[in-house]
Amino acid sequence: MLHRFRSAAAGLLLSAALAVPAQAQTAAKTDSLNLRKLYDEALLRGQSYDNLRYLCQNIGARLSGSPQAEQAVQWGKQTMEKLGFDRVYLQEVMVPHWVRGAKEKASFKAGKGKSQDAAVCALGGSIGTNGKLKAKVVEVRSWDELAKLPDDKVKGRFVFFNRPFDDRLIEPGAAYGGAVDQRGRGPIEAARRGAVGALVRSMTSAQDDYPHTGTTRYDDKVTKVPAAALSTLAANRLSAALKQDADLEFELEMACQTLPDVKSYNVVGEVKGSKYPDEIITVGGHLDSWDLAQGAHDDGTGCVQSIEALRLLLATGLRPERTVRAVLFMNEENGNRGGTKYAELAKAAGEKHLAAIESDGGGFTPRGFSVEANAATVARLQRWAPLLAPYHADGIGPGHGGTDIGPLKGQAQALIGYDGDSQRYFDLHHTAADTFDKVHRRELELGGAGMAALIYLLSKYGL
Amino acid sequence: MLHRFRSAAAGLLLSAALAVPAQAQTAAKTDSLNLRKLYDEALLRGQSYDNLRYLCQNIGARLSGSPQAEQAVQWGKQTMEKLGFDRVYLQEVMVPHWVRGAKEKASFKAGKGKSQDAAVCALGGSIGTNGKLKAKVVEVRSWDELAKLPDDKVKGRFVFFNRPFDDRLIEPGAAYGGAVDQRGRGPIEAARRGAVGALVRSMTSAQDDYPHTGTTRYDDKVTKVPAAALSTLAANRLSAALKQDADLEFELEMACQTLPDVKSYNVVGEVKGSKYPDEIITVGGHLDSWDLAQGAHDDGTGCVQSIEALRLLLATGLRPERTVRAVLFMNEENGNRGGTKYAELAKAAGEKHLAAIESDGGGFTPRGFSVEANAATVARLQRWAPLLAPYHADGIGPGHGGTDIGPLKGQAQALIGYDGDSQRYFDLHHTAADTFDKVHRRELELGGAGMAALIYLLSKYGL
Repeated sequence: MLHRFRSAAAGLLLSAALAVPAQAQTAAKTDSLNLRKLYDEALLRGQSYDNLRYLCQNIGARLSGSPQAEQAVQWGKQTMEKLGFDRVYLQEVMVPHWVRGAKEKASFKAGKGKSQDAAVCALGGSIGTNGKLKAKVVEVRSWDELAKLPDDKVKGRFVFFNRPFDDRLIEPGAAYGGAVDQRGRGPIEAARRGAVGALVRSMTSAQDDYPHTGTTRYDDKVTKVPAAALSTLAANRLSAALKQDADLEFELEMACQTLPDVKSYNVVGEVKGSKYPDEIITVGGHLDSWDLAQGAHDDGTGCVQSIEALRLLLATGLRPERTVRAVLFMNEENGNRGGTKYAELAKAAGEKHLAAIESDGGGFTPRGFSVEANAATVARLQRWAPLLAPYHADGIGPGHGGTDIGPLKGQAQALIGYDGDSQRYFDLHHTAADTFDKVHRRELELGGAGMAALIYLLSKYGL
Repeated sequence: MLHRFRSAAAGLLLSAALAVPAQAQTAAKTDSLNLRKLYDEALLRGQSYDNLRYLCQNIGARLSGSPQAEQAVQWGKQTMEKLGFDRVYLQEVMVPHWVRGAKEKASFKAGKGKSQDAAVCALGGSIGTNGKLKAKVVEVRSWDELAKLPDDKVKGRFVFFNRPFDDRLIEPGAAYGGAVDQRGRGPIEAARRGAVGALVRSMTSAQDDYPHTGTTRYDDKVTKVPAAALSTLAANRLSAALKQDADLEFELEMACQTLPDVKSYNVVGEVKGSKYPDEIITVGGHLDSWDLAQGAHDDGTGCVQSIEALRLLLATGLRPERTVRAVLFMNEENGNRGGTKYAELAKAAGEKHLAAIESDGGGFTPRGFSVEANAATVARLQRWAPLLAPYHADGIGPGHGGTDIGPLKGQAQALIGYDGDSQRYFDLHHTAADTFDKVHRRELELGGAGMAALIYLLSKYGL
């Protein structure tokens, strides 16, 4: 059972608590009431959950260059047109086109044991194996360990990068940051030492059989070798088997390949500012997803929340004083071409960007916002924390904005990342498990409303 | 994707930020490091998740008086004995014994339409229908509406209490508080007006077909009538059907009954305080659950977190200075006999209770603690917020402690409820969906560590 009744009128009486002069108190009261309107609209008549259902279940996985990515572009455009935004348009951008081909297969056998299958998937951008690739395996957990291996322990083998997430870290994003170098640099460093392939432990604390894909890199001066992610359970089993039989052979078959770049689009929906139309606030997520799943939390939620944030402002009559653009960026996952193009076009047009907000950490229950800006700007944003506290969106501090909005650095005064709770995020990230049912309606709506609230304040007060 | 790297050393450098004299700074640094030890132990070697798996999957639903409740008592005792707590013992308590019997059935038919089944379950404590009970239905959303109905619109009918959760409320517990009176008083108020039964909309914002059980009440001076919960979708369908055909008949069949009280137990595990053994800190959850599901979030998580909190203190060498008791309370759901008994025995023994902590709001990602105490005590607890902030457990404020520890009011200086995020809680609460797979390992462990951290501070500094 649970009987924990917090203030039912949260947000309504807040202004009284702000130690400010009378005029500012009136403004704070107005703001408090307006934020409440945005949340009411989201919680009672929110559209983001239904939008997300459509994107996930009717379109599904939408890697850059895929037919589904094109469907998603059309869906995004039509969805914003139906909402009556002032202007909805596409920004053309050429994107990479990598395809997985037939589902990957892998197996290994320790000593005289039975051959066992290993759950694997190609890392994004990897070359294929051109049939079956069979080789011995050497396991490492650090670059140093790899550097110290004698050549004959690496040459002709798979290098198996098996450094796990550091579970002590409270923020899973920090654990990801401490492990993802293996996925990015693994194939280059392995090939430099003469290895025939790279096997990388999946980027998660979860113990399960979902392999996690994600971008890997090659260097034109180093032989390209196939690179695959192993599920954490497969990685554990392989590691145990290697202790038993250091010369076991691992067999991998992957049919992935990179095709020529194709034309795609960012989708932009704009509402003109009523007072300062030339000052722009961008809010966005990325429309592309990895090919393995529905891309629900990564990043369908960010897309539908961005659209919803604009819808909430219009539906509540809080038309922004500065121009606001909801942007569905293409190709965050394997190139960031959309984000790069958006910033280029903004620069070429001489646009003044006040701030850019991105939601790309999953649509989980709100925590606040992380801000990439100078200290004074961060402090200025923190002054709004009391207004956001009733909604648990008041955790405002310095941090990363987002990949898509990253290229706006230097053009926008603040890059702002929406922070939801992230404990569950890396269970799903880049896997077949990132599906619509993992998203909670109210958590999603609270996030979109929080973004709308921040835009309302930014558009009214500037920075 | 996500690249949001917060301080990897969260919690280690915190003491520097506290504006306190040198000696206090040293203490704060020690405390900060000790909290980090508790969290490390929980996140790297936590046992609560495996304990919960056993409780949910090997024992399962465990309503007071059931054989599974007895198994849970033995499991709790053995689990704490194996951990080497100083003393593990049972507190005998007589508990109600209500049984559901065969699964309930319900159906209705509007006009000349087809008969449709409705997802229902008996409310806890309800009498059965003694075969099929068929009657017309009158829908109300408030007591006022019921009061204004003419007798002939109520007599011989089911009263259908269909007031939904107020979705505008940010805290789902507040929405629950605004609707649960229908479940508690519905049958009495319906019978008082001559109705033959009560149908109550399930206590949730979720739109699905899980009926939510929970305790209802009778009054010895008023005829007892059967009371059932309808899933929210069934309630919506019935409401729509009534608009079409106000005289439709609803058919309900329930075989539930109340048997004589049976003997059961609270399970208590104690670690003696090294300095102040006579001052007691209790930490607990309730061992009983409703009969429909595994009682994962309600309240298996509270039980395993309470055990874990003690284990963490011992495993890290932070033996508490005051006596700490992990208590698995029996019968929170339909009587609170265990909580009442515990407080009675404590009073009779003249025990001094410093504080009692309860986790009974689900094992979700941490928010903080809600405190039932005088303002000075709340403020004292709030001074520890900076130490808990790196773990997101710093939301400390006045609020409800918990049902099981409620009877300690006046005996304990503070009643403290562990607050996890609650957006998902009422999707599962009292339903067949409250299963182990809904609990996230790290969220659960972070909660147990947060409780251990608070106990560490309480046991060191008192209140």
